[in-house]
Amino acid sequence: MVKVGIIGATGYAGNEIIRLLLNHKDVEIKWLVSRSFAGQKFADIYRNYFEVLDMECSGKELSELADSVDVVFTATPQGYLSSVLTNEILEKTKFIDLSADYRIRDVFTYEKWYHIEHKSPELIQKAVYGLCEVNREKIKNTRLLANPGCYTTCSILTAYPLVKEHLIDPDTLIINALSGVSGAGRGAKVANLFCEVNESAKAYGVTTHRHTPEIEEQLSYAYGDPIMINFTPHLVPMNRGILATETATLKEGVTAEDIRNAYNKYYKDEFFVRVLNEGQTPETRFTEGSNFVDVNFQVDERTNRVVMMGALDNLVKGAAGQAVQNMNLMFGFDEAEGLKSVPMVP
Amino acid sequence: MVKVGIIGATGYAGNEIIRLLLNHKDVEIKWLVSRSFAGQKFADIYRNYFEVLDMECSGKELSELADSVDVVFTATPQGYLSSVLTNEILEKTKFIDLSADYRIRDVFTYEKWYHIEHKSPELIQKAVYGLCEVNREKIKNTRLLANPGCYTTCSILTAYPLVKEHLIDPDTLIINALSGVSGAGRGAKVANLFCEVNESAKAYGVTTHRHTPEIEEQLSYAYGDPIMINFTPHLVPMNRGILATETATLKEGVTAEDIRNAYNKYYKDEFFVRVLNEGQTPETRFTEGSNFVDVNFQVDERTNRVVMMGALDNLVKGAAGQAVQNMNLMFGFDEAEGLKSVPMVP
Amino acid sequence: MVKVGIIGATGYAGNEIIRLLLNHKDVEIKWLVSRSFAGQKFADIYRNYFEVLDMECSGKELSELADSVDVVFTATPQGYLSSVLTNEILEKTKFIDLSADYRIRDVFTYEKWYHIEHKSPELIQKAVYGLCEVNREKIKNTRLLANPGCYTTCSILTAYPLVKEHLIDPDTLIINALSGVSGAGRGAKVANLFCEVNESAKAYGVTTHRHTPEIEEQLSYAYGDPIMINFTPHLVPMNRGILATETATLKEGVTAEDIRNAYNKYYKDEFFVRVLNEGQTPETRFTEGSNFVDVNFQVDERTNRVVMMGALDNLVKGAAGQAVQNMNLMFGFDEAEGLKSVPMVP
Amino acid sequence: MVKVGIIGATGYAGNEIIRLLLNHKDVEIKWLVSRSFAGQKFADIYRNYFEVLDMECSGKELSELADSVDVVFTATPQGYLSSVLTNEILEKTKFIDLSADYRIRDVFTYEKWYHIEHKSPELIQKAVYGLCEVNREKIKNTRLLANPGCYTTCSILTAYPLVKEHLIDPDTLIINALSGVSGAGRGAKVANLFCEVNESAKAYGVTTHRHTPEIEEQLSYAYGDPIMINFTPHLVPMNRGILATETATLKEGVTAEDIRNAYNKYYKDEFFVRVLNEGQTPETRFTEGSNFVDVNFQVDERTNRVVMMGALDNLVKGAAGQAVQNMNLMFGFDEAEGLKSVPMVP
Repeated sequence: MVKVGIIGATGYAGNEIIRLLLNHKDVEIKWLVSRSFAGQKFADIYRNYFEVLDMECSGKELSELADSVDVVFTATPQGYLSSVLTNEILEKTKFIDLSADYRIRDVFTYEKWYHIEHKSPELIQKAVYGLCEVNREKIKNTRLLANPGCYTTCSILTAYPLVKEHLIDPDTLIINALSGVSGAGRGAKVANLFCEVNESAKAYGVTTHRHTPEIEEQLSYAYGDPIMINFTPHLVPMNRGILATETATLKEGVTAEDIRNAYNKYYKDEFFVRVLNEGQTPETRFTEGSNFVDVNFQVDERTNRVVMMGALDNLVKGAAGQAVQNMNLMFGFDEAEGLKSVPMVP
Repeated sequence: MVKVGIIGATGYAGNEIIRLLLNHKDVEIKWLVSRSFAGQKFADIYRNYFEVLDMECSGKELSELADSVDVVFTATPQGYLSSVLTNEILEKTKFIDLSADYRIRDVFTYEKWYHIEHKSPELIQKAVYGLCEVNREKIKNTRLLANPGCYTTCSILTAYPLVKEHLIDPDTLIINALSGVSGAGRGAKVANLFCEVNESAKAYGVTTHRHTPEIEEQLSYAYGDPIMINFTPHLVPMNRGILATETATLKEGVTAEDIRNAYNKYYKDEFFVRVLNEGQTPETRFTEGSNFVDVNFQVDERTNRVVMMGALDNLVKGAAGQAVQNMNLMFGFDEAEGLKSVPMVP
Repeated sequence: MVKVGIIGATGYAGNEIIRLLLNHKDVEIKWLVSRSFAGQKFADIYRNYFEVLDMECSGKELSELADSVDVVFTATPQGYLSSVLTNEILEKTKFIDLSADYRIRDVFTYEKWYHIEHKSPELIQKAVYGLCEVNREKIKNTRLLANPGCYTTCSILTAYPLVKEHLIDPDTLIINALSGVSGAGRGAKVANLFCEVNESAKAYGVTTHRHTPEIEEQLSYAYGDPIMINFTPHLVPMNRGILATETATLKEGVTAEDIRNAYNKYYKDEFFVRVLNEGQTPETRFTEGSNFVDVNFQVDERTNRVVMMGALDNLVKGAAGQAVQNMNLMFGFDEAEGLKSVPMVP
Repeated sequence: MVKVGIIGATGYAGNEIIRLLLNHKDVEIKWLVSRSFAGQKFADIYRNYFEVLDMECSGKELSELADSVDVVFTATPQGYLSSVLTNEILEKTKFIDLSADYRIRDVFTYEKWYHIEHKSPELIQKAVYGLCEVNREKIKNTRLLANPGCYTTCSILTAYPLVKEHLIDPDTLIINALSGVSGAGRGAKVANLFCEVNESAKAYGVTTHRHTPEIEEQLSYAYGDPIMINFTPHLVPMNRGILATETATLKEGVTAEDIRNAYNKYYKDEFFVRVLNEGQTPETRFTEGSNFVDVNFQVDERTNRVVMMGALDNLVKGAAGQAVQNMNLMFGFDEAEGLKSVPMVP
C-alpha cells in the first residue's frame, strides 16, 4: 500500500482526491492537512464522507509529516509548496503539486503572471509537467510532479495533435473556454455566491489569465517553436466542467482526414482521451465525475479554419483525477487504477 | 458471473443501472432493450459510455430474451411488466421491477391510484417488496422483486423506526418531499424543459400522488395497523435528489433520546442508512451518486412533534442502486458490491 | 414627489427596493446608505444600474440623514433599527423596516427567538405590522411600519382565510416552505457559495426558525386564540421564490366549496393575491419579479385535511415589493403604483 | 392606441412581447394567434398572466386578421411569414417578423443556410433589417421589419464600431457566443429537457449555425467589403442571456484609446448600448429582463489582438425588446417606451 498525505484537503480539489483514492485498491491515506479546519473531523465538513472516512484535519507542518508517507498531494494556494519544499524534504517523499508552482519552466514568467516571488526556483528543473498523455515516461521517474491546471489540460489536449503535426498555423490559435464554478474554489467570496453566479455568464481574466503561459509553454514544446495565443476563460453556472473551443487556420492542403488521423495517432490508445465520432460535439456532462477528456473538431472550408473542442471535468482530469493518474505512473500501478468510473449522467 | 438483461435501458433509471453494474465485479450485461432506440448504439444516446460500453439497444420481446439471463431489470412504464410476465417466464429468470406493478399487495388499490388494469394480479403474491433494510430475508428468496419508488424509499426509511416502535401517533404523520427533475423521466414533455423547471418550485400530485398508497401500506405493516397519511411531493430545480420532511405528534412521554435509540436500533448496522449526528440536517448533495440515505430528526417540545428528515439520490437508492442492492441479496453477493462509491461533492 | 432614503441599499432587498422605486412615478431617491460600500458608486456594485442610477453609497448615520427624506427604508440586519431609532427621529420621517425589529408585539418573544436584546421596546407599540391585505387601514396611518418577512407573508396569506373563518383546526397546522437562495442574503459565507447550494436541497432552522413566532402571532390574531405551529423552511437551488405548503385538519363539515368561498371573500378584490383555478398549483416562476402571491388548495377527503399552497417572489412581495406597497398606503398613492409589472417567465 | 396582433404568441419570444407591451402606454393587443393552443386561454399556458391578461389564443389565418390591427408581430418558425405574406396584406398592416425570413438580402444564401425554399423572395427588398442602432432611419419608414436574431444582435453590436472604423482586420474576426436555453424555444424536445441541459455546456451548430451569414452580411455593410467569420455558439445552463466573445487582430497602430473612442462615437448617445468602464466585463445577469446591451473590450498587446465582449438578454434585446423598440420607431413613439425597466438582479 502506498501511503498518502494530502495538504489542502478541504478545498474542492483536495476533497476530490480523497473521493478517488478511497476507490483505489493500493492506497492508504495517512493524514489530511487543512489549516482552516485543523482539529475538525473531515466528515463534518464534507458530509458525503459521514461514516465513510473517520479522519481529522491536521494543522501540522509539512516538515513534521513528510517522513510518514510515500507521496504528498498539495492542493494548496499558489506559492505554498515552493515556499516550504526543500531538497531534503524531496528526498523523503514524492510530491504531486496541484498548484502552479512548478509548472512553468521559466521563473520570470511565473512571477510575472502570478505576481508572486518564487521561493525555490532551483527545484523547478526537478519537476515534471504531469500531462500524462504527453509526458508519460518522464512522469514515471520524477519525485516532483507539477500537476497541470484545469483549463490547460483541456486546452492543450484538444489542440495537441494538430500543433504537434503542424497542421495549423499556431499564430492563429484562439482559445475560448468555459468553466464550472468549482474551479473558483471554496473561499467565502461574494463573487462566488449562488445568487451572483447562477443565471449568468461572463468572461474574466481577459488577456491576463494565469493559465495562458502554461498553455503556451506546452504547445510550444509540441510545435518546436514559441507559440503565443489568446486565451479567454468564462464562468458559467454549473458545478463542474471545462469546455474549450479553439479556432485556428489550417496550413495549406490540410484536410479533415489529416486532422482525424492526427487525433487518432496520439489518442487512439489513450484510455482517458476519447476522440468522438464525426459530428458529435463534446459536452461536459458526458465526462462528469470521470477522468475522460472528450475531443472533436469541425473543419470550416469557407474560412479554412478548424474548430477544435474539448470537454472534461475540472475536478477530475482537470485536477484530482490527473493527479491520481500521475501517482499511478509514479508508483508503477495500472494508469487507470481508481479512475475507471463511468461519467454520471444526469 | 450473473447474466443480466435490462428492459427500458435508455431511461434515466435504466442508464443508472448500467453505470452501477459496470462497477460490479460479478455481473455481465447481456442485452439492453429500448423500444424507442432499438438498433441504436447505447453509447450514441448516453455518450458517457463512449468507448466504455459497446452495445446496441434491442427491440426484442421479453419472451425471446428471458432464457438468456439470470435476472432482468425492468425500468419500464407502469403496466408493462404486469402485461407480459407469466409464471412460465418467471421460472426461467428472476425479475427486479422498477415500476410499481408488483409493489402494492391489493390490486384494487393499485388500479385505483394508477388508473391501469393490472394484467397479472395472480403474480402479485409472489412478489417481494424490495426495501432491503426492512425485507432483507424475504428478498433473498424471491424471483420477483418489486423495487420501491424513490419517494417511498426515502419517506418510509425516514419514519420507519418511529412507526415500528410506536413513538409517534401515525394518524398525525404528514410527509412533504422534494424531488430533482430526473424523477420525471426522459420523455419529451414541455413541462420538463429546462426553462419550465429551472428557477421555480411547485407542488404536484397533491392528495393524489401514486406513491401515497405504497408508503401507507409499508408503514401500516410496520405499525401493525392501517395508517393513512398526507403526502405532498414537490419539484425543485436540480438533477437528482429526494428530500423528505415528515412531521408527527409524539406519543406521550417520548423523548429525543427514545427517538435516537430507535433510529440506532434499526440502522446502526445498516451500511446504507446513515443516522446523522445531532443538529445535522440531511442534504441531498451529500448522497449524490451513492446508495446512501441520510436521516435525522428534531423534536419540537413546544408542539410535542418530531420533524424527521431523509435525503437520498432518487436514481440510486431511490431506483437503480436499490435494485442492485436487491440483486446482491437475491444472488448471495456482498450487499454493497458495486455500491461503495462515495457521494460526489460538489 | 416623496423623498426616499434607503439604509442597507447593497443587500438584495435594498437593491430590489431601488429597482421598484425607479419604476414609481411619485418617488425620488435622495440617498443610499451602505456601511460596507460607503464611498462607492452603487452602479459599480450592482451593474444592472450602469448609466441608470448615478448615486454613491453613503456611510452617514441615520441621525444626520433623517431630516432630508419623507420615508426611510431599512433593509438592515436584525437589531440595527431598534438600536438607533428614537421618538425624535420618528417625528422627522417615516420608517419602513424590512428587519424583524418591530414585527413582534412581545419583546420577550423577539429576544428569545432572535437572541438579541431589543434596544427600543417602547417603540414596538407604535409599529404596524405591514401585511397590507390584512392591516390596510392601520398601515395608512403609521409612521413606523414593520414589513413582514418573506416566509411569513407567504405562510400567513396562504392560510389566512381558513384560519380567520375557523375552517381548520389550527392546532393541526403544519407549514413547510421552500426558499430561493437570495433569502440568505449577500454575505460572503461558504454555505451560500454556488457549489454548496446548487444541485441540493435541505431543511434548516428546524423547529427554531425565527419566522415561526411571527406567523403564529398573526395567525393567532386572525383566529382569535393563540395558535402554535410547526414551520420547517428549506433551501432549494434557485435565485428567488418562496413556496409554502400547509396542511391542516378541516373542522367538521367543511367542504372544498366553503374553502373556496373563504379565499374569495378575502382575496377576490385583492390585486396582489391571486386565487388560482381549481387544480392549478402555485409555481414560484409565475410570480417572479412581481408583487403577486398565488394561492390555492386541495382537499383530501381520505384524511379530512386540506393542503394549502402559496407562492411569491421573496424579494418582491416577500420584501421590497410589499415595502413599496406599504409606502403607497402610507402616502395615499395607488396601492399598486410601481408594482404592476407582469412576472417574467422564463 | 396602436392595435397589435401577435402570431406565435405562446413561444418564449411571443410571451415576452406581451409582457413588454403590457408595459407600453400606447398599445392595445387585439389578438393572439397560436396554432398549438388555439381556443385556450393564454393565462392558462403562461400563468404569470393570471388575472392580468384575459385573452384566448386564436387559430385564425393571417388573411382574416390583418385588417384589424396596425402591426403584426410574428414570432413564428422560419418560413412561416414568407409563405403567407403578400403585397396585398402588407398594404393593410405593418409587420415585425422575429423569424429570419426577411433578414438576409440574398435569397440563395437564405435557402442554403436554412434549407427552406423562400416563398416570397420578391418581398425581401421591401424589408428593413431592424438593428435599431444601425438602421434607425430606414426602420422608421418600413412596413416590413426583419427583426435581428439574438446571437446576431449581440455579435454585431459588439464588433460594429471597430469594423466600421476599420480598426481590426475583419478576416481575423472569431466570434464565440454563449446562450441561455430559452433561445432553443419551447418545443418538446429531449435535448432541451432540464436533465439534459443542466450542469453541462456544449458547442453546437459548429461552422453551420444560421446566424453566421446574417452577422457576415451586416458586418460587411459596416466594413464596406465582404467579411467572412467563424461563429461558434454554445449552450449553457441558464434561462436567458447571450454572451459574445470576439477576437480580432488590430490594424497597425491601433490603440486601446482608438477603440474606446470608436465605441463612444457610435454608442455614447445610444440608450440601450452601455459601454462599460475600463476593466469591467459584461455579465448577462446585469442585462436580464432589460433591453440593454453591455459591451467592452480588452487589448492584448502581446498578440496585438483585441477581445471584444457583449452581453444581452436574448428574449429582450435579442428578440421581443428589439421588436418593440422597432415598433416604437415605426410608429413615432419614444424609442424606449415600454422598455425602461432596470435589469432584475439576482
